[in-house]
Amino acid sequence: MTDKKWAFEDLKEGITISLGEKAVSAEEIVAFASEFDAQPMHTDEEAGKASLLGGLAASGWHTCSLFMRMLYDAFIADSTAQGSPGITETRWRLPVLAGDTLSGGTTVIAARPLKSRPGIGIVTFRHQVTNQRGETVMEMENPVLFAMRETGAAA
Amino acid sequence: MTDKKWAFEDLKEGITISLGEKAVSAEEIVAFASEFDAQPMHTDEEAGKASLLGGLAASGWHTCSLFMRMLYDAFIADSTAQGSPGITETRWRLPVLAGDTLSGGTTVIAARPLKSRPGIGIVTFRHQVTNQRGETVMEMENPVLFAMRETGAAA
Repeated sequence: MTDKKWAFEDLKEGITISLGEKAVSAEEIVAFASEFDAQPMHTDEEAGKASLLGGLAASGWHTCSLFMRMLYDAFIADSTAQGSPGITETRWRLPVLAGDTLSGGTTVIAARPLKSRPGIGIVTFRHQVTNQRGETVMEMENPVLFAMRETGAAA
Repeated sequence: MTDKKWAFEDLKEGITISLGEKAVSAEEIVAFASEFDAQPMHTDEEAGKASLLGGLAASGWHTCSLFMRMLYDAFIADSTAQGSPGITETRWRLPVLAGDTLSGGTTVIAARPLKSRPGIGIVTFRHQVTNQRGETVMEMENPVLFAMRETGAAA
C-alpha cells in the first residue's frame, strides 16, 4: 500500500500529464556545460552564434536533465517510481537557447505488469518538451518502473 | 581547415576511442539529484539500499552527463564536433553506485557526409560505460555532426 498519488495502476495508456514551465538562463547553461560538456557553443555566446545552433545553447544532456526536473516536479515526486532501464529514442529537434522557457507533457503509450518482478509494472512514456513558441525542442520515449498500489512491496 | 585532432575524416568506421576513468562520489550523486532528479534512491543512502538499485545510485541523467564529460575529455574537446541530433538508444544496464569508478570506450559504427550540409559529416558512435569490475553500466548509440578537415566552414 502506498500514499503516493501515482502508482502503476494510475498510469493508464493514453493519459497525458502536463509539465510545468522552466526558464533556462545563460548562467545555468554555462555552469552545466563547464562541468559536463564544455563545447564552445555551450559555454560562449559568440561561439554559439557562430555554430550550427545559432546562439548560446544548452548541452543536450542539460536539456535532458532540466526535463527530468520538470518530470519529477510534475508527478514522479508523488509516485511509486522505481527507476528506468533506459531510453528507446531521444531527439534534440531544436536548440534550447539562453532565455528560452521550456514546458511540455508526457503521454503513457504502454503499461504492463512485469512478469519478472511481482508488484512492479513498466510504463512507457512519450515525452515532449516545447519552447515558449510552442516548438518541440526534444522528444523521447522512455520506460519507467512503478510499484503497484496494493501489492508493491517497495512502494 | 582546422587544427583540431579529430575531424570527420579521422572518425572512420571501426575506430574505438578509450574513455578515461571518472570516480563517482556520494556527494556529487546527491548534488546532481537534488537539482535534477530528487528521487529518494538518488538522494538518500538508506532509501537507495531499500530500492531496486541496491544503494545510493546516480540518476541515469547524471550517468549520461558524467559520460559526456568523459567523451569530451577523451576527444570531443579536440574535435570539430558541431552538436548531435539525438540518441537512438540508451540502456542503463546496472546502477552506478557511490564509490564506483567509470571508464569505457566509444566505437564508430557508421560515418557519412551530410548531403544537406556541405562540409559536415555525421558519425554514429556506440558508447559503452563500464564500472571498476568491468561490468557495463550504460550503453548508447548516438550520431554526432563533425566538420570536415578541409572543407568544413564551421571548423
